[in-house]
Amino acid sequence: MITASKSDAVSQDGLLPDLPNGPLSEYRRKASFNWKDMAMFLEDEDIIAFKNKIFSTLESDPLFYRQPGVDLPLEKYRELTFLRCKKIFEYNFLTFEATMEKPQKMLVLINCLGMYDWSLSTKYFLDTQVFGVAIGNTGSERHETILHQTQNMEIFGCLALTELSHGSNTKAIRTTARFDASTKEFILNSPDFEAAKFWVGNMGKTATHAVVYAQLYTSDGRCHGLHSFVVQIRNPKTLLPMPGVMVGDIGRKLGQNGLDNGFAMFHNVRIPYENLLNRTGDISSSGNYTSAYKDPKQRLGASLGTLSSGRVSIISMVVTNLKLAITIAIRFSATRRQFGPTEKEEIPVLEYQLQQWRLIPYLAAAYALDYFSVGFFFNLIELQIGILMKDRSPRQAELGKEIHALSCAGKPLASWTAQHGAQECREACGGHGFLAMNRLGDIRNDNDPNCTYEGDNNVLLQQTSNYLLGLVQSIHEDNAPCESPLGSIHFLNDYKTILKRKFTASTIRECLDCAVALDAYKWLVCYLLRESHDKLQQEKQRAANDFDARNNSQVYYCRSLALAFIEHTVLQRYYDYTHDPSTPGSLQPVLKKLCCLYGLWSLNKHIAVLYQGGYFAGELPGRIVQDAILDLCAQLKDDAVSLVDAIAPPDFILNSPIAKADGELYKNLWSAVLQGEKVLERPSWWPEFCCNKPVIGKPRSQL
Amino acid sequence: MITASKSDAVSQDGLLPDLPNGPLSEYRRKASFNWKDMAMFLEDEDIIAFKNKIFSTLESDPLFYRQPGVDLPLEKYRELTFLRCKKIFEYNFLTFEATMEKPQKMLVLINCLGMYDWSLSTKYFLDTQVFGVAIGNTGSERHETILHQTQNMEIFGCLALTELSHGSNTKAIRTTARFDASTKEFILNSPDFEAAKFWVGNMGKTATHAVVYAQLYTSDGRCHGLHSFVVQIRNPKTLLPMPGVMVGDIGRKLGQNGLDNGFAMFHNVRIPYENLLNRTGDISSSGNYTSAYKDPKQRLGASLGTLSSGRVSIISMVVTNLKLAITIAIRFSATRRQFGPTEKEEIPVLEYQLQQWRLIPYLAAAYALDYFSVGFFFNLIELQIGILMKDRSPRQAELGKEIHALSCAGKPLASWTAQHGAQECREACGGHGFLAMNRLGDIRNDNDPNCTYEGDNNVLLQQTSNYLLGLVQSIHEDNAPCESPLGSIHFLNDYKTILKRKFTASTIRECLDCAVALDAYKWLVCYLLRESHDKLQQEKQRAANDFDARNNSQVYYCRSLALAFIEHTVLQRYYDYTHDPSTPGSLQPVLKKLCCLYGLWSLNKHIAVLYQGGYFAGELPGRIVQDAILDLCAQLKDDAVSLVDAIAPPDFILNSPIAKADGELYKNLWSAVLQGEKVLERPSWWPEFCCNKPVIGKPRSQL
Repeated sequence: MITASKSDAVSQDGLLPDLPNGPLSEYRRKASFNWKDMAMFLEDEDIIAFKNKIFSTLESDPLFYRQPGVDLPLEKYRELTFLRCKKIFEYNFLTFEATMEKPQKMLVLINCLGMYDWSLSTKYFLDTQVFGVAIGNTGSERHETILHQTQNMEIFGCLALTELSHGSNTKAIRTTARFDASTKEFILNSPDFEAAKFWVGNMGKTATHAVVYAQLYTSDGRCHGLHSFVVQIRNPKTLLPMPGVMVGDIGRKLGQNGLDNGFAMFHNVRIPYENLLNRTGDISSSGNYTSAYKDPKQRLGASLGTLSSGRVSIISMVVTNLKLAITIAIRFSATRRQFGPTEKEEIPVLEYQLQQWRLIPYLAAAYALDYFSVGFFFNLIELQIGILMKDRSPRQAELGKEIHALSCAGKPLASWTAQHGAQECREACGGHGFLAMNRLGDIRNDNDPNCTYEGDNNVLLQQTSNYLLGLVQSIHEDNAPCESPLGSIHFLNDYKTILKRKFTASTIRECLDCAVALDAYKWLVCYLLRESHDKLQQEKQRAANDFDARNNSQVYYCRSLALAFIEHTVLQRYYDYTHDPSTPGSLQPVLKKLCCLYGLWSLNKHIAVLYQGGYFAGELPGRIVQDAILDLCAQLKDDAVSLVDAIAPPDFILNSPIAKADGELYKNLWSAVLQGEKVLERPSWWPEFCCNKPVIGKPRSQL
Repeated sequence: MITASKSDAVSQDGLLPDLPNGPLSEYRRKASFNWKDMAMFLEDEDIIAFKNKIFSTLESDPLFYRQPGVDLPLEKYRELTFLRCKKIFEYNFLTFEATMEKPQKMLVLINCLGMYDWSLSTKYFLDTQVFGVAIGNTGSERHETILHQTQNMEIFGCLALTELSHGSNTKAIRTTARFDASTKEFILNSPDFEAAKFWVGNMGKTATHAVVYAQLYTSDGRCHGLHSFVVQIRNPKTLLPMPGVMVGDIGRKLGQNGLDNGFAMFHNVRIPYENLLNRTGDISSSGNYTSAYKDPKQRLGASLGTLSSGRVSIISMVVTNLKLAITIAIRFSATRRQFGPTEKEEIPVLEYQLQQWRLIPYLAAAYALDYFSVGFFFNLIELQIGILMKDRSPRQAELGKEIHALSCAGKPLASWTAQHGAQECREACGGHGFLAMNRLGDIRNDNDPNCTYEGDNNVLLQQTSNYLLGLVQSIHEDNAPCESPLGSIHFLNDYKTILKRKFTASTIRECLDCAVALDAYKWLVCYLLRESHDKLQQEKQRAANDFDARNNSQVYYCRSLALAFIEHTVLQRYYDYTHDPSTPGSLQPVLKKLCCLYGLWSLNKHIAVLYQGGYFAGELPGRIVQDAILDLCAQLKDDAVSLVDAIAPPDFILNSPIAKADGELYKNLWSAVLQGEKVLERPSWWPEFCCNKPVIGKPRSQL
């Protein structure tokens, strides 16, 4: 067992202050490990110090003060979000050099701001990263000024792809950009309001510039497909729209209302031809179109390529939401007492098996998915370095395909887990979970669009299953092994052997080894791959076209395949990590339990398929898997509080009275309620009750 | 096939105006039935006329005008909700006599108001029904004035049961009411802030009177358990709190923000002893406690009995939410086009099997649960008539128990189905589903508390499983048959035979007969009953006490049992209804498909258990059930638009631009967006961007 050395302890205490004593102390005492050791294991000192700096800066700046659960008018919320965003520019938490040195810090910054408020984080992220990176990745030297202006907030950016009538089907985008050879300008046009750019974050009120995706037409009338252009939509000196641009705000949303989402229509707006982001295609001085790609499909892929890194970031963001939600629900459950073995004594609701089963698997998921998201981000960095280095090796191409496949299933898995987890946490906190100040609503609502943007979850999953189905031929020809840079498909080389396997565990104890779930997942992926492939072949023979055949192979087949595959990947990576000899001995037991619980709990959703395909037989397998899940929940319940302590942000950031680190649930809640505006005052409209009495059955006109 | 006669058609056209032509017409033409016939079959003319009256009254009163998606400040929303509530009193849609004649109309009114806005509906319902009925059912002649004052809105009521630290465990309520013999008063006291009444609807700003639950103490210091008292909390002339009452608003919630939920603490508040609601227990003139019940447990049951009808109403309310959500999602999906077999042609997303599978089962659930909720309401009326008639027969007692068991599982099933359905509908509408004006967020958020109030869903389910476990002895002694007034447990008489059965269907076609799902459910309930009983016995031997034994038998056992039982009941009732010879031949095919789809889709969640227990064996059963689900979805997709037409309220009430009856998705959405406040204006804080530029890395103080 590894214990912290003296110098470790000193650095720990500086980085991780002790948590206050109170009603949570009892659970903390019962924990099998030290939460500070865990925190220091999950993130390095540098990252923890970076987070601390961000958190303490926000906490000590009155601009960032929040009243829990307060009802801000939309415009006020947007103003505050903008002012805070500007302040983040001023704080400049992350210099360009620091980002280059440790790119992960950008994600940490985004998540720290998100833990505070996703509207702020998204606003900042869309401008500096999505807009900035789109220009950096698809533009050229001539666009450097724009980057510079973005960094100084001289201009403010957004990325305008989707239109009112087109989201998922980006190829069908209808905005046009026609080259006018006489003036060397592009003329941007929205053919009608259905082609208005729509849903664009930052466009509603603040953006001065947009990267606009449009169909490029040369003067000869030929269409060269979707390209992106920098378009000035507002005057940075006045924030008034540019001539010919109709730009506005799409209104209130289900969440992230501090962010202004907008629309824009272009009425023959002329922009200099240099505004074409010309990495993949350009117009020569003579007005001819030139492209780095011969195949238009390849060009489209490259043009949309800048969007794929968004999914990797989203995985990390939604995991952050899951961590927030589960922190709130676990701390609440450890301090909320209801019923008990005798009438005199009430026990914390966390002691109930049902409550454990509702929450602790999501805690395990938060740990497992968090690990995946960090590692996957490094995989992305590797890919991006390759792109920067102009690596044209087959490995680089394969890495791109694998990351695409993993991100297209990873985002759905993680965002749904966070969404369902947030709802479960809200319900598990009962009425108090429904009170806005306790924040579970905001977490759920701010998380929700992650299921949709950067690709609808259900649509994205097809990308992953397509990738896997593309491997079937190599699998059948034994001489072409399944190889991929990240190894996520290596196990498919044993496809035939795996499919012959059966579940062999016969006791709960055996199921407490995570290898059991992992083996079952390997079988599951192979089985679903075979079934999906067969289904697709059948449908191809039956259907009118491949389009229909593919559509009719999704439910119960390709969709399940993509999810099972990503769950396996997440589990395999977490298994390797928790079983690594370098993992501290003091933490390994609890981490292995989390790994096993995540594995079995995820697997439990597929038990019908395990039976159907014959991997399970008889009553025993289903029963011992479920008993093992409950057993692990019971084993982990005394560790749950410390497990959330290790991932929770400070109280100011978490901003949930029922989940403060001191565990004084009712005192904090009551105090927050009493701080509400006009909480004890009668309403301003009291005479409407006291004087203007209704005459029953005689409505008076209001006019 | 039954066709409408001429006079029917005339009355139909008066009651149900034709729907406008537009992009939805094609699906309407393809429907297998006439939506007006369906509407007239689902509800009688009188009810339809009543609904029309409510809807058209609201639509023509400017007080009820709404801007879709508008952002109302909390206080403004509450004021509007109060004014609208007062107007509902003035409109007096339902006289006392009309309610007596057709009690169902009260539920129709609540739902019509809810379709408009749940805050309004709940506000009205809590005052007139929950507060009013509590007094009517637990008070006596001396409380009639209060009822009269409520009806005239001289006073405004709320029901105060839960406290800050106690919700589910009502027995542990800590507010006290001590009888002072010298003044013949009760002294109401909250021992500390944790015993503050909390979450009480209408208490935040408007209620003048509360029915308060408190522990009754006689002057000799003896506690007689929980009783209810009418307490004046505010002065109706000023809306200022009464002396000793600290009353306030708990703040913003995740939904229903037009309703003011509040808290109250009582500091030795004296109330006349007549304010005790004395149906179950009273204080004699000499200060002695007298009770109609010998057993305190029985008294508690009777005292809380008034709450149980709430659950029956909630089932109907949440089904209303499901109907709204699915209407929006189906109409959107029938008009939103994305991708297609060729690049030129895009098809409605409803044509995708995946979209059908996501939505059409919820449409089927809306129909099946709606039928259940209406029938179950009539069962409740029967029970209530028995109570009024002082029926003390064993049948009446059994009816009470059965309705309790069904409502304790019916509310969880229906509220979760609506909650998950609303989320699925929001996601199925993509980004536009995330836009507040399209209303899916409000539906989901307003539906959410139904999972918690009137009993947390998970806690309630135990009541149902306890009822079923109580039958096990009769089942084992064959001579004591399972009998219940509503027949929901009759099939358990064949328990032993049923458990021996196996799934026998071998083709998709066979599964299209709803009897297949029904048979499987019968086996499932019997199996889970046996397993739960055995588990409980095992746990009793292992655990320290019965409390632990019961808690450790919930997950995968008792909880699943309660859900399977209620799903069976809903399905059985819908099966009998759709297969009844009196159901019109023109509607029967589509109704049977809905029944079958609901059955198989619900059953599909239990397939693991069906395999585990040996009812299913091999690949075939799981596969044909799933194929049948997809087949039914495909069969129903052309009927889906007409099926929602038959249950949708008018556009004004539905209030969702993407789901208007004319199907002009984009025109309506675009027009609603452009009507937004200051939609095209620059923000008021524009100089914060244009003039006060940030200096990167140099934060300025905000003070």
